[in-house]
Amino acid sequence: MIQSRTSVRFILSPVPRVSEDHLIARREQILAAARTCFLSKGLHNTSMQDLIQEAGLSVGAVYRYFKSKNEIISAIAGTVAGGIQQHIDAVADERLPLVESLDLVLDGIERQLEPDGSFSIALQVWGEATLDPTISEIVRDRYTGVRRSVRRLVEHATENGELPAGADIDATTAAVFALLPGYALQRVLIGVPDKPTYMTGVRALLGR
Amino acid sequence: MIQSRTSVRFILSPVPRVSEDHLIARREQILAAARTCFLSKGLHNTSMQDLIQEAGLSVGAVYRYFKSKNEIISAIAGTVAGGIQQHIDAVADERLPLVESLDLVLDGIERQLEPDGSFSIALQVWGEATLDPTISEIVRDRYTGVRRSVRRLVEHATENGELPAGADIDATTAAVFALLPGYALQRVLIGVPDKPTYMTGVRALLGR
Repeated sequence: MIQSRTSVRFILSPVPRVSEDHLIARREQILAAARTCFLSKGLHNTSMQDLIQEAGLSVGAVYRYFKSKNEIISAIAGTVAGGIQQHIDAVADERLPLVESLDLVLDGIERQLEPDGSFSIALQVWGEATLDPTISEIVRDRYTGVRRSVRRLVEHATENGELPAGADIDATTAAVFALLPGYALQRVLIGVPDKPTYMTGVRALLGR
Repeated sequence: MIQSRTSVRFILSPVPRVSEDHLIARREQILAAARTCFLSKGLHNTSMQDLIQEAGLSVGAVYRYFKSKNEIISAIAGTVAGGIQQHIDAVADERLPLVESLDLVLDGIERQLEPDGSFSIALQVWGEATLDPTISEIVRDRYTGVRRSVRRLVEHATENGELPAGADIDATTAAVFALLPGYALQRVLIGVPDKPTYMTGVRALLGR
């Protein structure tokens, strides 16, 4: 049976197999081109043709990896949210006091606010999520993942006695989570405050 | 000299003057049509032609009030931010404890999260602000105005002794302000939490 399957496979795929590394590198190349286009022209003004050109690949090569712009948006959203989530998880592993954790988490957010960072793409994707159910689902999925990592910080703060025992963890997570995009938005839309100033405000507000 | 100017004006505007009310009503009609288009098709996919058609007016009638889509976006941003700001100012006038003020402020935000509310337009405008310097300036201006009103809440909280004496008012304003779009984003992008749950979290986080 296995023998027979192998034969079929051999017949169906006579082309030389490309290495896994090559596949990953090509995928990254396409995503990097998409980021460049999204940052300069915006999500809406970027066509598949634009990013195929930016990637310097053939139409067939790009469509082999991504069937549509939405698939590319999904991949980028996954990478960005995944990176933020990993960063928050690494901070959570340290089990520091809440404001110290927030300070470190904001370092990760900060990197996405640079001109080549992903926050402006995130903003565009969020706007699109209010119009396109497919994008909405992608965003809900990613946003929920990040919030799950923030929840760990709140759990630790409750265990450390920093938050009242019996505090509603999910509710408090929502309040802590708000401080992250709430900071990024001000930085991107008004340009202030810088992170140390913001953290001074957070400390005063939380009475820490 | 004044006599002469009056004559010139008379010569240049022989058409019957329309009433102020009529002008305001027409302007509102155009902005309502723009909102409808932006909510259903998005900012990007709405052309001047689309909203002229939606308004049921002639091209000339619309261009008499707004020279471009950016002028319309600016007017809508002004109305929305102005409404939020008025609401926050009315709350600030009450000089309530900070969490009670926030609770009332969120009622105003909440209304913009309804399907016909303006938050999804705001999100699209914010995304656009990262690409278009004209929109960026409009947004910075409006956002700064709203933040100025939030600052009043923080001033009162400092005067009431709710915040440490000598707290950095601007820094703390940034932290308090973050709680507003931070709430709206979660509601729009993940659907939770509802306002009472969020306020439970804010109270726990602030130790109130």
